Amino acid sequence: MDMVGLELLNSMCRFPTFVLVKDTAILLLHCPDQKGIVAAITDFVDKNNGNIINLDEHVDCDVGHFFMRVEWELDDFLIPKEKISEYVDTLVAKRFNLKFEVKFKKTKPRVALFVSKYSHCLFDILSRYESKEWNIEIPIIISNHEKFSYIGERYGIPFHYYELTNDNRKEIEAQEYHLLKTYDVDLIVLARYMQILSDDFCTRFENRIINIHHSSLPAFAGADPYRAAYERGVKFIGATAHYVTAELDAGPIITQDVIPISHNDSIKNMKRKGKDIEKIVLANAIWAHINQKIITHQNKTVVFA
Amino acid sequence: MDMVGLELLNSMCRFPTFVLVKDTAILLLHCPDQKGIVAAITDFVDKNNGNIINLDEHVDCDVGHFFMRVEWELDDFLIPKEKISEYVDTLVAKRFNLKFEVKFKKTKPRVALFVSKYSHCLFDILSRYESKEWNIEIPIIISNHEKFSYIGERYGIPFHYYELTNDNRKEIEAQEYHLLKTYDVDLIVLARYMQILSDDFCTRFENRIINIHHSSLPAFAGADPYRAAYERGVKFIGATAHYVTAELDAGPIITQDVIPISHNDSIKNMKRKGKDIEKIVLANAIWAHINQKIITHQNKTVVFA
Amino acid sequence: MDMVGLELLNSMCRFPTFVLVKDTAILLLHCPDQKGIVAAITDFVDKNNGNIINLDEHVDCDVGHFFMRVEWELDDFLIPKEKISEYVDTLVAKRFNLKFEVKFKKTKPRVALFVSKYSHCLFDILSRYESKEWNIEIPIIISNHEKFSYIGERYGIPFHYYELTNDNRKEIEAQEYHLLKTYDVDLIVLARYMQILSDDFCTRFENRIINIHHSSLPAFAGADPYRAAYERGVKFIGATAHYVTAELDAGPIITQDVIPISHNDSIKNMKRKGKDIEKIVLANAIWAHINQKIITHQNKTVVFA
Amino acid sequence: MDMVGLELLNSMCRFPTFVLVKDTAILLLHCPDQKGIVAAITDFVDKNNGNIINLDEHVDCDVGHFFMRVEWELDDFLIPKEKISEYVDTLVAKRFNLKFEVKFKKTKPRVALFVSKYSHCLFDILSRYESKEWNIEIPIIISNHEKFSYIGERYGIPFHYYELTNDNRKEIEAQEYHLLKTYDVDLIVLARYMQILSDDFCTRFENRIINIHHSSLPAFAGADPYRAAYERGVKFIGATAHYVTAELDAGPIITQDVIPISHNDSIKNMKRKGKDIEKIVLANAIWAHINQKIITHQNKTVVFA
Repeated sequence: MDMVGLELLNSMCRFPTFVLVKDTAILLLHCPDQKGIVAAITDFVDKNNGNIINLDEHVDCDVGHFFMRVEWELDDFLIPKEKISEYVDTLVAKRFNLKFEVKFKKTKPRVALFVSKYSHCLFDILSRYESKEWNIEIPIIISNHEKFSYIGERYGIPFHYYELTNDNRKEIEAQEYHLLKTYDVDLIVLARYMQILSDDFCTRFENRIINIHHSSLPAFAGADPYRAAYERGVKFIGATAHYVTAELDAGPIITQDVIPISHNDSIKNMKRKGKDIEKIVLANAIWAHINQKIITHQNKTVVFA
Repeated sequence: MDMVGLELLNSMCRFPTFVLVKDTAILLLHCPDQKGIVAAITDFVDKNNGNIINLDEHVDCDVGHFFMRVEWELDDFLIPKEKISEYVDTLVAKRFNLKFEVKFKKTKPRVALFVSKYSHCLFDILSRYESKEWNIEIPIIISNHEKFSYIGERYGIPFHYYELTNDNRKEIEAQEYHLLKTYDVDLIVLARYMQILSDDFCTRFENRIINIHHSSLPAFAGADPYRAAYERGVKFIGATAHYVTAELDAGPIITQDVIPISHNDSIKNMKRKGKDIEKIVLANAIWAHINQKIITHQNKTVVFA
Repeated sequence: MDMVGLELLNSMCRFPTFVLVKDTAILLLHCPDQKGIVAAITDFVDKNNGNIINLDEHVDCDVGHFFMRVEWELDDFLIPKEKISEYVDTLVAKRFNLKFEVKFKKTKPRVALFVSKYSHCLFDILSRYESKEWNIEIPIIISNHEKFSYIGERYGIPFHYYELTNDNRKEIEAQEYHLLKTYDVDLIVLARYMQILSDDFCTRFENRIINIHHSSLPAFAGADPYRAAYERGVKFIGATAHYVTAELDAGPIITQDVIPISHNDSIKNMKRKGKDIEKIVLANAIWAHINQKIITHQNKTVVFA
Repeated sequence: MDMVGLELLNSMCRFPTFVLVKDTAILLLHCPDQKGIVAAITDFVDKNNGNIINLDEHVDCDVGHFFMRVEWELDDFLIPKEKISEYVDTLVAKRFNLKFEVKFKKTKPRVALFVSKYSHCLFDILSRYESKEWNIEIPIIISNHEKFSYIGERYGIPFHYYELTNDNRKEIEAQEYHLLKTYDVDLIVLARYMQILSDDFCTRFENRIINIHHSSLPAFAGADPYRAAYERGVKFIGATAHYVTAELDAGPIITQDVIPISHNDSIKNMKRKGKDIEKIVLANAIWAHINQKIITHQNKTVVFA
């Protein structure tokens, strides 16, 4: 067994001493809030001999909506892995008007990185990848600059450079889309990718493109937020990781963090300090996504702990 | 209906538009982790026609222990309020080896304040009391100084002053104990009460005495933590609210917070800044306790959100 | 000597063991950045036998502007207290094109409180006032509601209630202005005062009206910021204390703080948590102002530690 | 001019548009607090035609000690660079009983990395090095494991592996010492180096070895702090960067940070989250050191902003 296996194993809960990683099913669901839903879901897993190892639920009282994440071991589960989705649909989803997804722990998400000329998020993600901190594959890096092609070589990851102009945007996106399909990409991470994606592209990868914006949104959306923060004289700067939607910097927020600043901080200094929160906030969002912790509803996220 | 009622009402979940506050039952439980427990509890509530409005569970994977808080409406619940504890005991507690408590939302906790010469926590608690931020009664204030007797008068709360000496400690504690019983006190809050309680006293009010310590425990237990922080040259100071146990400053931690400091902060300044986090950290701990959010196990707390 | 005196004394720097509080002069200045300014100022104090006990300076490199705060003891200072301003003007201000103010430690700022129906900031300020945490006088409380008139009585502070309508705004402001002049008010604190002041009024008290806004400005300016925060799905909420200018919620920011929230936080809960940061952020801004720590320039503040 | 030059240039203050980086002198000093010291220092620089671009001073009132950092441009400075130290000594140090150091901006610190088996701090430092975020040279990496020898190759940095046993510690340290002298190392960074250095070694590199400890010292000194944090049930974990002294985990603290945790965080999860604050806290300490922001006195640091 390799190190990744051990890592996974140790992050599991009820059987920390087992030698092999057990696969688990993760059911993410949401629906209008209603009576009996928790009992119905736990009963479904329990009756079919699933051992629940994590359960989180949330009711948004302000709009009356219910969210749940439940994870159970597949070892003795009576329903075959490939049939779980169908059975959930038949047995509970219709009754409660659920929207749901079923994921499996052993399935490695395949993550494409988009980058321009800033290295801090890129290097941080690759450092985590290299140290196997995350259970992912990175099959491809895409950039509108050649600057980091040597990084692709270093890590053995195909690096695709596209020379973007105002005229070829649509065509390049079509090529990128083809590439992402070819590499079977589950998640796109914009690691300070300084280009705007088309509405079409955003829609095709709904809730599957994570961007890092260098401000505490909704403050200072758009370009040059540190200068804007300097000019407004704020006492905190921040970073925001969010799913990308057609409307710029307006998608569902996944993670945010802030740090205090003062008059002592020049714009230069804000940028220096900002890089560190940008990379950590982005990493936390990626972690939550690849560990199936996020449910998105009405342009907002529920991110379970 | 009075303002408190409306306040309570609005904090309720599934029926935010109802005019009257509904009472709820809150079941806090913990046991060795085991299969089927969530399903069994939710089934118990559901089958007896209880409408679950909040459910939180936690598995401590490092020791294999399960914790749960579930809250449901009593309106149509089939088991009478005064019988719920007995039925939980009979129907689920024995099977799963549960430790549990049943509480009711409408029952106002009765809180005694102990204070010495610092006003910041005392004034903060009374401000919240006066503005009905908390659903509590404060039937009594006890102090080893006369300084704040005028405060008792202002709020119409009996104020008991005891002149403590090294010789009369045991006797005074006996009187205090009698007083607390007379006033039917559920919770004791040491609002910067600068006296050590006897082991006996602590044991009698296990998990029902909350103290605020002016450091981020376990750093700087004991007297004069700000001086100790200054001398060690730390870059953060903090405050810790914890249940009081026989061992000084070693009881289960409920809430903590910290603030950054620098070489600019003199001991005087640390004390000034520290007062603000002390009062907020203490208030957060009281809030969690009176809202039945805390389960204590093996000198640690689970504090549900 | 009273307790306030001792408090002040202990916060002094070079002579912590003296029994009487010494008065100090505080010079706040700013000017275009230029060579020799620090040397000129320190030389001015030193040559006239002033003992500098605090010196802070800041250069805003992005716009080339210089800021300085210097505090010295008046005991042996050769220039009489009432002449210091004139001498600074003659000897250094003209040479360096300084804008400056001279303040004295022993002069107690006179602070008027404006309040509507929320108590948390009001009670917090009065608690600090009652415990002599701040070296101020509060000669008057003004409100557009009668709710807190009993609080004025409790603290022996004249409480003026004005029934504001859309028609009498100008007239009432004139009366308030007269009152503030009568009571010789130095600083106005809007302790969650839910009314907009006229441009005229703001201009007359430039940099002397502190407001607390219940968001991390510039995010969620205007009414109901917690609902706006909920709707945008942010992961932090905050509070901002700022000087009031004619443009709503756009004045120079003095202090800000934020706290993390999650999907667990209903609007109700945000408001509850928000109250605590609002009162602390406001208190920190008042502290900085009354301790002469703030220089305002181009709608931004320099707040020395 | 290369990118580093431009980077440096832009971080300079009064002449942001110049094309060439100007060298500056940085004087760090401390002495018993006394009258006239600021005036004397600023006068020394001013009279010799130095243009002060940064000045920070601090008086520790609790012990009566004065600290100062002043930075000025060397362009027109009358005293030759190599004579500055001598002139400071003669003209001011003796009069005020100063301890001082003179540093120059253009002199690149030479930093040796010590590492064991954890990669997160190592990779973070090398990412900053690769992106030229810091103006340093890393001439050597030393490890008690072979694991990262490939990293030395990747970055073209000599990697020295020493097989440490309980018997050869002294001998290996002698070799390391020789190596550090050969490579003319100014600063040693223990990037999660899991070995204890001898008293001798620590003394030879006083205030020149930075360690990252994975707790908020003084809480949880020693081995396995995350387990200790878990067992005490704290609500915050932290990291501390400090200069290494003979006494383990007791040297002067440079930077600290903390993050909130809850019952939800297993030891595994604390370690995961802890890695991120460890690397940022260490990076901030290195940044402060290489930018000559730190003065150490009586086992504590003054770290200017």
